[in-house]
Amino acid sequence: MGDAGNPSFVLRAIKDVALEPIANPEIIDPYDVIVHIGQTGICGSDVHYWQRGRIGDFILNSPIVLGHESAGTVTATGSKVTNVRVGDRVAIEPGVPCRHCNYCRSGSYNLCPDTVFAATPPHNGTLSKLYKTAADYVYPLPQHLTVEDGALCEPVAVAVQICKVGNVRAGDKVVVFGCGPIGLLVQSVCKAYAAATVIGVDVSQARLDLASTVLQCADGVFLPPKPATPPQTADEECEWSAQVAQQIRDRFPQLGSEGPDIVIDATGAQPCIQTGMNLCKKGGVYVQAGMGRENVTVPLTNALIRDLTIRGSIRYTAGVYPRAVELVASGKVQPRKLITHRYKFEEAEEAFETVRRGGEGVLKVMIEGVRD
Amino acid sequence: MGDAGNPSFVLRAIKDVALEPIANPEIIDPYDVIVHIGQTGICGSDVHYWQRGRIGDFILNSPIVLGHESAGTVTATGSKVTNVRVGDRVAIEPGVPCRHCNYCRSGSYNLCPDTVFAATPPHNGTLSKLYKTAADYVYPLPQHLTVEDGALCEPVAVAVQICKVGNVRAGDKVVVFGCGPIGLLVQSVCKAYAAATVIGVDVSQARLDLASTVLQCADGVFLPPKPATPPQTADEECEWSAQVAQQIRDRFPQLGSEGPDIVIDATGAQPCIQTGMNLCKKGGVYVQAGMGRENVTVPLTNALIRDLTIRGSIRYTAGVYPRAVELVASGKVQPRKLITHRYKFEEAEEAFETVRRGGEGVLKVMIEGVRD
Amino acid sequence: MGDAGNPSFVLRAIKDVALEPIANPEIIDPYDVIVHIGQTGICGSDVHYWQRGRIGDFILNSPIVLGHESAGTVTATGSKVTNVRVGDRVAIEPGVPCRHCNYCRSGSYNLCPDTVFAATPPHNGTLSKLYKTAADYVYPLPQHLTVEDGALCEPVAVAVQICKVGNVRAGDKVVVFGCGPIGLLVQSVCKAYAAATVIGVDVSQARLDLASTVLQCADGVFLPPKPATPPQTADEECEWSAQVAQQIRDRFPQLGSEGPDIVIDATGAQPCIQTGMNLCKKGGVYVQAGMGRENVTVPLTNALIRDLTIRGSIRYTAGVYPRAVELVASGKVQPRKLITHRYKFEEAEEAFETVRRGGEGVLKVMIEGVRD
Amino acid sequence: MGDAGNPSFVLRAIKDVALEPIANPEIIDPYDVIVHIGQTGICGSDVHYWQRGRIGDFILNSPIVLGHESAGTVTATGSKVTNVRVGDRVAIEPGVPCRHCNYCRSGSYNLCPDTVFAATPPHNGTLSKLYKTAADYVYPLPQHLTVEDGALCEPVAVAVQICKVGNVRAGDKVVVFGCGPIGLLVQSVCKAYAAATVIGVDVSQARLDLASTVLQCADGVFLPPKPATPPQTADEECEWSAQVAQQIRDRFPQLGSEGPDIVIDATGAQPCIQTGMNLCKKGGVYVQAGMGRENVTVPLTNALIRDLTIRGSIRYTAGVYPRAVELVASGKVQPRKLITHRYKFEEAEEAFETVRRGGEGVLKVMIEGVRD
Repeated sequence: MGDAGNPSFVLRAIKDVALEPIANPEIIDPYDVIVHIGQTGICGSDVHYWQRGRIGDFILNSPIVLGHESAGTVTATGSKVTNVRVGDRVAIEPGVPCRHCNYCRSGSYNLCPDTVFAATPPHNGTLSKLYKTAADYVYPLPQHLTVEDGALCEPVAVAVQICKVGNVRAGDKVVVFGCGPIGLLVQSVCKAYAAATVIGVDVSQARLDLASTVLQCADGVFLPPKPATPPQTADEECEWSAQVAQQIRDRFPQLGSEGPDIVIDATGAQPCIQTGMNLCKKGGVYVQAGMGRENVTVPLTNALIRDLTIRGSIRYTAGVYPRAVELVASGKVQPRKLITHRYKFEEAEEAFETVRRGGEGVLKVMIEGVRD
Repeated sequence: MGDAGNPSFVLRAIKDVALEPIANPEIIDPYDVIVHIGQTGICGSDVHYWQRGRIGDFILNSPIVLGHESAGTVTATGSKVTNVRVGDRVAIEPGVPCRHCNYCRSGSYNLCPDTVFAATPPHNGTLSKLYKTAADYVYPLPQHLTVEDGALCEPVAVAVQICKVGNVRAGDKVVVFGCGPIGLLVQSVCKAYAAATVIGVDVSQARLDLASTVLQCADGVFLPPKPATPPQTADEECEWSAQVAQQIRDRFPQLGSEGPDIVIDATGAQPCIQTGMNLCKKGGVYVQAGMGRENVTVPLTNALIRDLTIRGSIRYTAGVYPRAVELVASGKVQPRKLITHRYKFEEAEEAFETVRRGGEGVLKVMIEGVRD
Repeated sequence: MGDAGNPSFVLRAIKDVALEPIANPEIIDPYDVIVHIGQTGICGSDVHYWQRGRIGDFILNSPIVLGHESAGTVTATGSKVTNVRVGDRVAIEPGVPCRHCNYCRSGSYNLCPDTVFAATPPHNGTLSKLYKTAADYVYPLPQHLTVEDGALCEPVAVAVQICKVGNVRAGDKVVVFGCGPIGLLVQSVCKAYAAATVIGVDVSQARLDLASTVLQCADGVFLPPKPATPPQTADEECEWSAQVAQQIRDRFPQLGSEGPDIVIDATGAQPCIQTGMNLCKKGGVYVQAGMGRENVTVPLTNALIRDLTIRGSIRYTAGVYPRAVELVASGKVQPRKLITHRYKFEEAEEAFETVRRGGEGVLKVMIEGVRD
Repeated sequence: MGDAGNPSFVLRAIKDVALEPIANPEIIDPYDVIVHIGQTGICGSDVHYWQRGRIGDFILNSPIVLGHESAGTVTATGSKVTNVRVGDRVAIEPGVPCRHCNYCRSGSYNLCPDTVFAATPPHNGTLSKLYKTAADYVYPLPQHLTVEDGALCEPVAVAVQICKVGNVRAGDKVVVFGCGPIGLLVQSVCKAYAAATVIGVDVSQARLDLASTVLQCADGVFLPPKPATPPQTADEECEWSAQVAQQIRDRFPQLGSEGPDIVIDATGAQPCIQTGMNLCKKGGVYVQAGMGRENVTVPLTNALIRDLTIRGSIRYTAGVYPRAVELVASGKVQPRKLITHRYKFEEAEEAFETVRRGGEGVLKVMIEGVRD
C-alpha cells in the first residue's frame, strides 16, 4: 500500500470497519514526530465506539482510525525535537493537550477540552502504519523492553493515574474492585508503591486467580456472595452492600477494623460502588475508575458523614506516563502477563471481535503493526 | 429548683419532653469547667431526636437533656484550667473527643468515635442550668459580644468547617444550595473569606430575599424553575438537573463559562445534589453539607469524568470554633440577624414546637437559660 | 519612525542605553499577538541589568530592549487567537514558557528553563512601541481600568504569587518585612485575602507611613530599633534578631503569643531574614521574596526545630496574573497609589536614573509608550 | 533493690551519673501503663545532656534519669487501658503531649510545648527498671520481634518522620547526607517506600560501606572530595559546595540532570547543608534532619530561586511510631544490623562512654534492662 498512503484500520460508521489507507503524515510543526506503529492493544472504549459510535459527548460523525494503546519506532522528527531520534522505539501517550488553556497551564492537562486524543472523535487513532504526534508525548523505551511492552504502558499509565488520584502510598491498605486489565494493573501498581495490603474483588473466580497467582498483585482476593433474595430497591441494594462490606472487613483483619485507607472501583458496577463506599475507612479515599451507567444510587450520607473523599480518575497527568515506563522497565509491573491474544494488522477486525465477545479468557488483545 | 438539682429540658422518650432536674455537675477532672448556660439555639437535629429518637446509629435508649448550641458564664474551673476564669462568658464547642484515638492524635477529632457530643445519645445536652465540659472546648467571648452571639457561634462554626472542607479561598466562585440558617451562614463565611462571587439557591423566594437583602451574603440568588413535566425516573431527574445547572451558568456569567469553583449543598435534597454536581466546574470541589435521605442517585460518571472532588462536612476540627468566634466578633458574619424567635427556659417545649412547625418565617429560635 | 522600525529603549552594554529602532514584529505563530505598549513600570531588575549587566546566570552578551512591566493595546492577532481582539487593552505577563518541559506540563511553568522572559538576556523587553507575545499571556483590562493600571498588574502579580507560596488565607496573621513597592503590594494582597492582621516592617518611617496611611494595607507598622552595639559576628546578629523578633511579638499581641502564621521578607537583607525566621510561629511559613546576597547566615536550627516551612517565590504561576487583574479591577489593591514619577518614552533614561538614585520619595516610576 | 525503689541510671549533674533508685511508679491516671524496660538504645542527645547539661532551651537543673529509646513488658495497666495487657511486649514512643493545646488538637503534637519527653529536662528518661507512660504511646510488638527490635523502633520512627516531612514516595530520587544510624535508617525507609534511587554521602568510607553492603539501603554512595585549598570564607564554601553538588549529579546520572527530588541532611554539618541545597532539583524538598551549629550560612538565594521547600524534622507525629513497628516487623528495615555494642544495665556508664568516644566502629549501643 506504500505510496498509495498510510494503511489504517478505519471505523467508517457504527459496526462498519475497514482496512484502508489514509493520507501519509508529514512533519509541519517542528516539535512533531512520526512513529511507525509496532504494536497496539485494544481497549474497551475502542470497541464501544465501534459498536455504538459514541461515548458521552464524543460522537462519531465521520470516519476515524481506531486504536490508542500503541508503541513503535520513530521514523521522522521535526527540527526542534531533542528528546528522541529516528530509530528510537517509543511508547505513545495518546492525548496531546492544547497547551494554552487554564487546565494545561495549571498542570491539569487531562481536563483540557481541546486535547487531540487518539481514536476519540473526530481524531484519528493509532491503528495506522504511521502516526504523527508531539515529541514530548512519546517516551523512549529502554533496550530490554519490547515494543509490545511499550504499547502496554498505556493501561499501566491509566493505573498509575488512578493510584495518583487515590494518593496510594507505602503502608496503605487498598481494596480494588475489578480484576480485569485495569483492576489488575492498579493492584500491581499499589504493590510496586509498597502498599501494605492489596485486596482484589471480582465476581469471576478465574479473574481472582489471576490476581493472586499469575500477577501476584493481590495479598488476598474476595468473591462477593450472592444475596439469598435479590434486593428489590436501591435502598435494599445499599443495605446489602453494607453487609458485603462488613464481610470483607471480617475476612481480612489486616485491613484494620475500620476498613481500608483507599478503595478503588475499576468496574463501574453499582453494587461495587455501593460496597466500596461502605467499606472505606473514615477519612479515606474512594476512587471511581471504572465508568458504568451515567447515574448511580450511592450511600452518600454514610460516605460523607465518614468524611470520605470521592474522586474520579480520567486519563493521565504530568509524570504519569514516564512513571508507567519506569514501572514496566523495572519489572515491578508486568503487563505482558495480561496478554491472551495476538493478531496481525490484517486481522484487526477479528481482534476487535474477540474483545467484543469477551469472557473470562480474554484479557489483553494485541494487534501487530504494518510491516515494512 | 436550686438545691433540688440542675434544672434541665429532658427528652424522656420520643415526643416526650419535660423540664426536670438532673444531678448537679461537679468538677472532678482538673481540666473541666462548669458553665451556667445563658442562651441556646435550637437545631434541626434536636427536633429530629425529639420526634424520631434517632439519627443514624445514634439511638435514644434512655433520657437525655436536649440542646447543643449554647453559651454562658463559667461558674467553676478545675485546678489545671488556664484559658478561662470564673465569670468569663464563653461559647461552648459541643463535642469533646477522646484525645487518645488515631483520629484525635492526627488532628481529625471530628471523626473520633468516642466523642462526648452534647445531646447525642447517650450524652446529655446543654439545655440545663449548669453544664460541665472540657476547658479547651470553651472559648471566651470578647466584651462586645452577647451570650446570645456566643450561642450562635455554633452554627457559624458548622459553616466555617464546611468552608474549610470546600477549601474556600479569596477569589473563589461559590454556589450554595439552601438559604436556611446553615446555607446563609456558609454564604456569609464565603464572603468573609473574600470569595469573588457567592450565589444562593433556594426554592423559597423569602429565603432568597434574606440572602440578598437582609444578610447581604449573596452576590446573586436563584429560584430553580419547576419542570413542565415532573421527571419520572432518576435518570430523568438527572437530565433535568443538568438543564437547571446550565440555566444557573447562563444567568450568572460571573461564575465563568465552566461553572463555580465550589458547590456547597446545604439542603440534602436529591435535586439540589444532582444540580450541584452538574454545575461545579471541572476540577472543582463539591461539598455535601446537608443530610437528606441515606441513599441518593447522583450523576457520578459525569461528576468524576470532570474530576470533581466530592467531600462531606461533619462537625468541627481544630481552629474552627475560634475562627467562628473571631468572625462573629469582627462583624463579618452576623448570625444575630437569623433570629426569628426568642423563648424563656420555661417555654422550651413551645420553642421546639415552633421549629418543628417550621415555615419561611422560622429561622433561628433561641431559648434563654435558667436565671439564678 | 514607522517604516524605519520599532522604536525601543535598548541596553547596548553596561551603563549604555539608547533609544533606537529594532525590527518590527510580525505575526508568524498563529497564537501570537502584537501589542502597542502604552505604559511600562520600571523594576529594580531593569536597573540592575543596566548597571551591572547580569543577574545570577543571566548575563548581557548582546543588546536587549529593557522593560517588563507593561500594558497596551492589541494591534494584530494570529489566526488562532480567540481571547483578545485588535483594539483590546491588555496587561502583559512578561514570561512565556516553553510549554513542553516537565515543569510546564506539571503546572510549574515559573521553573521552565526555556521561558522567554522580557528583558532577561538574551530576550528583548517591552520598552518598544510594539511587542509580540503569546495571546494566552495577555489579559484584557476591564473598561474602568487604565493602561497604567494594567502595567501595574505586574508587581501586583508578583505579590499574588508570593501570597500563593505563603498560602495566605482568611484569618491569617502576617508580618511583611519591607515597605517598598513589592512589600506594600504584598500587604495589600494579604488584606484583600482577608488576613486577620498584617504588620509592615521597614527601616524608613516614611515607608511605614505609606503602609499605615496611604495604602492602608497594614494593621500596624514597626520600625526596628538599632542595637546599642552593632553585632560583630553572624552569631551575634542572629542573637540580636531574636530579640527584635520578641519585641515585635510584644508590640503586637494580636499576632498571638506564638508569633505570626506567615512571615514574608521582601527585602533580602540578612537582618530581616534572621528576624523573620525567629519571629514566625511554630509550624508557620516563611517566604523569601526579596533577593539580596547569594549566601546568608540564618538561624537554621531554631527555624527547623520549630517546623517552619521555608519557601522562595519566583515569577508567577497559572492563575496568578488573572487574579492580579481582578484585584486591581475590584479596587481591593490600588497600585496606582505607588506611582511617584511619570515620564514620556523619550525620557526613559531619565526615568531609569530616578530609580537608580532611589530614596524614600521614589516608589513606582512609569514610562509612557510611543504615541502613534 | 526491689522494695528499695526503682533502679535507675541517673544524670545527677554534668558528667556525673550514677545507678540509684528513684520512686516506684504507680498507676493514677486510668489511661497509664507501667513497663518493665527490657532494652534501651543510646542516642547522641543522651550523651549531649551528660556532657553538657543542655540542648537548646532544655537545661539540666535537677537530676533526671537518662534514656529514651526503649521497649519492654507491660506490668500494670490503668482501668481504662484497652490497647495492651499485662505481659505484652511494647515499643515506647518517648514523648507524651498535653492533648489540650492547639498543636495537639490539630495533629501536630510534635510541636506541643508541654510534652513530657523522656530524658529531656526536667522529665525522667526510660533507663529505669520500671517506666510509667500513657497507654496510647506504647505499641505491642509482634511475636517474632525481640524487645531489642522494639527499642530500635525509636530511631526508625525518627527516620519515618523525616521521610514523612520530605514526602518520600515511590519512584522518588533521594540523596541522604550522613551514614550514621539515622542517615542509614532514612535510606532504608526510603527503599522500603520504593524510592527509585537512594544515594548515601559520608566522609567515612567505612560508613559508606555499611550503606552499600551491610544494610544495602543505598543504590550508590559518595565520598566527597577534599578541596585542594580549603575555602576561607562562607562564600567560598558555598562555591565549593556547588562544585561538589555538580560532581554528585555527574556521578549518578540516575538522579536525572536536574538532581534529586529530595535531599535529606542527617549530619547538621555546614558543608553538607550547602551541598545539599545546591544539589536538590528545582521544586524539590530539602529536609534538615541533623542538628549542628545554631546559625548556618546557606545559599539561600539559589535555593529559593529554584523553588526548594526547606523543612526540618522534629520528633514524631501521629501514625509514625506504628509505621516504624510495621517496617521493622516486615523486615523491610533492619535496625538490628546497626548494633555494634551491647551492655548490661550495671554497665550503663561504660555504654555511654563508648558512645562518647565514638569512631567508625560505633553505631548503635544497647543497654539491657534490670532483670527481675
